[in-house]
Amino acid sequence: MATINDNYLKLKAGYLFPEIARRVNAFAQANPDAKIIRLGIGDVTEPLPEACRTAMIKAVEDMGDRSSFKGYGPEQGYAWLREKIATHDFQARGAAIEADEIFISDGSKCDTGNILDIFGKNNIIAVTDPVYPVYVDTNVMAGNTGDANEKGEYGGLVYLPVTAENNFTAEIPSQKVDLIYLCFPNNPTGATATKEHLQAWVNYAKANGSIIFFDAAYEAFITDPTLPHSIFEIEGARDCAIEFRSFSKNAGFTGTRCALTVVPKNLTAKAADGSNVELWKLWNRRQSTKFNGVSYIIQRGAEAVYSEAGQSQIKALINFYLDNAKIIRQELTNAGLSVYGGVNAPYVWVKTPHGLSSWEFFDKLLETVNVVGTPGSGFGAAGEGYFRISAFNSRENVEEAMKRITAKFKV
Amino acid sequence: MATINDNYLKLKAGYLFPEIARRVNAFAQANPDAKIIRLGIGDVTEPLPEACRTAMIKAVEDMGDRSSFKGYGPEQGYAWLREKIATHDFQARGAAIEADEIFISDGSKCDTGNILDIFGKNNIIAVTDPVYPVYVDTNVMAGNTGDANEKGEYGGLVYLPVTAENNFTAEIPSQKVDLIYLCFPNNPTGATATKEHLQAWVNYAKANGSIIFFDAAYEAFITDPTLPHSIFEIEGARDCAIEFRSFSKNAGFTGTRCALTVVPKNLTAKAADGSNVELWKLWNRRQSTKFNGVSYIIQRGAEAVYSEAGQSQIKALINFYLDNAKIIRQELTNAGLSVYGGVNAPYVWVKTPHGLSSWEFFDKLLETVNVVGTPGSGFGAAGEGYFRISAFNSRENVEEAMKRITAKFKV
Repeated sequence: MATINDNYLKLKAGYLFPEIARRVNAFAQANPDAKIIRLGIGDVTEPLPEACRTAMIKAVEDMGDRSSFKGYGPEQGYAWLREKIATHDFQARGAAIEADEIFISDGSKCDTGNILDIFGKNNIIAVTDPVYPVYVDTNVMAGNTGDANEKGEYGGLVYLPVTAENNFTAEIPSQKVDLIYLCFPNNPTGATATKEHLQAWVNYAKANGSIIFFDAAYEAFITDPTLPHSIFEIEGARDCAIEFRSFSKNAGFTGTRCALTVVPKNLTAKAADGSNVELWKLWNRRQSTKFNGVSYIIQRGAEAVYSEAGQSQIKALINFYLDNAKIIRQELTNAGLSVYGGVNAPYVWVKTPHGLSSWEFFDKLLETVNVVGTPGSGFGAAGEGYFRISAFNSRENVEEAMKRITAKFKV
Repeated sequence: MATINDNYLKLKAGYLFPEIARRVNAFAQANPDAKIIRLGIGDVTEPLPEACRTAMIKAVEDMGDRSSFKGYGPEQGYAWLREKIATHDFQARGAAIEADEIFISDGSKCDTGNILDIFGKNNIIAVTDPVYPVYVDTNVMAGNTGDANEKGEYGGLVYLPVTAENNFTAEIPSQKVDLIYLCFPNNPTGATATKEHLQAWVNYAKANGSIIFFDAAYEAFITDPTLPHSIFEIEGARDCAIEFRSFSKNAGFTGTRCALTVVPKNLTAKAADGSNVELWKLWNRRQSTKFNGVSYIIQRGAEAVYSEAGQSQIKALINFYLDNAKIIRQELTNAGLSVYGGVNAPYVWVKTPHGLSSWEFFDKLLETVNVVGTPGSGFGAAGEGYFRISAFNSRENVEEAMKRITAKFKV
């Protein structure tokens, strides 16, 4: 009799964003004339950079000629893409990462989940709270947690609260943890980490033999030149960190799909017999066996991000969303709300007014001004009483949404 | 101290195809003038159908306009693609599969590995021998096996030999197994399964509460109209089967990446408390949490397979490779070799001549006539003494390779 993975039954009813979609669809059906503005899911809205489109059309044409046709590519990605990433995103910032330490994938969501495949079941795992739900849910599925309590916290996970009180940067834990998820610029709070803060984490990880999973999906939004874009800019990080990056937010690839994971070659963790095993080899084996590489066409699109035209086009895109974030910050601040993030990140993290819970504020915004955001409590118990507003939308929609919100919710 | 998944250390040195690549590269470096013909890895060589290319260029252009731009799509794939697949590939053949039972993915390799995520650790798992190595390796990684013996067989797996003696169709096991991998038309042997054979498997699975993982990646190569293309053409299969399909081989998508998995909605397996849990819900949760859907551009390319032009173009492609297979069969048969498969499949399965082992024949072919095939033993212990030759290459290369082989290896 075939049996299921019972860990799935521990998962709470729905992944956050499907639940939001459900409520929004129900409202839209009941109110077909409502002009709903979506600032919920962090999804880009502006056209793909012209350089990427041109490169992908050329790549499609390559597929039409036997001499330039591409069948199976390397599971790790094409060298021409990995080399550009290594040079531009890492070495140019003083991070000693080689091209063959970069694994191209179809998404950071996949990679941050799949990375658990190569780790043991007895690791103590720390996440911030609030946190990107995929980190938690994939640990639940992998059997790395117990059941959830009434606040939605899973037994066995170490939660590191990030709140206004600690300036939204997780404090180094006093206990020993083995795997730590960090995301800077942060989703959902929009907070950033200084070099000193990351250095403290690296020092902790090295002292405890821990591995840091560093999610840098939003690094392109950093405007402060003193902030690190990669954990590998930090001394010692090659001994204790894996980094995840994506083309989703810098180049608008959410529907195009390309990302990457960096596993330094010297990085090790312990086997049951106490020996040190290189994680690069395990991840390479995992990807070779369970993945067949990203579409040639899409990799050519990602490569074009590194052309001169591509660089100037993605800068324009990023600045556009950052200007949206600035408008959101200003308008909500003027309305008397407490507002965080949104300076080096495309997310603005808002304290809900009038003591409303996160979902109460969500429903109120949806019902009274037809604006969709994301309830902070959906990102974890410590997100209760907060609300995430995404800067990913047209200028017109952002301005209209702010006009509607500030008219109703002046504090 | 972070620990690794020790199951990875049970894996044999290399996945089969990287090992072949290593030997071929070493030979090529030592013999730079050798004109090597690759009939090893089952990778397509002919241009992508024009209908698919036109659709993808249009899709790239869609991404350049705000009004037609696509961000995150449904993790399960776009409805317009799922509906065409349901109608054309299933309902038209009498298989009652609905669009929302189809999950679009970036590859069958991923799906056949990832499917284990939703199953328990205590299942008894059966594979044929020889077999596509990914089925075995992903079970090793998931901790579903013991160590390998000297023949490469992993403890805990039930191996069902498929050899000339049983006409290359696995016999129904006498013992009870919970999960069974079947692949028809078969990789590597090129064998097919009749409706009666699959009905016997379905009856066995229903009687034992087992789940069949049916890999139909090569269904497009079926020329015999009496053979089933889908397990869902078999009475009762909705109660006991999951099917994997791919655009890799029918439409030449090995470098473009699109595939699908069918999980019927009523299909269940047991939870620890004895209750029946719908596998559709678990797979939907897995894909929503660990996957972000296939590129919009690529899905539009896959959709074009179902247009009138697309259908005629993929038929021409399939016939081209089948004609290659016919040439391979004929030439090797004329040379006195024992040859199987290659009629309803793009693979020809050859008994190695002169009692050579599979790898001996591999090295000999490579060194003496500069032709690359795949050693049968790479697919499992029962594949020893066999050799797979792939029909995926140009007509010129296939004819030249056959000329060289038959000149040297006349039996």
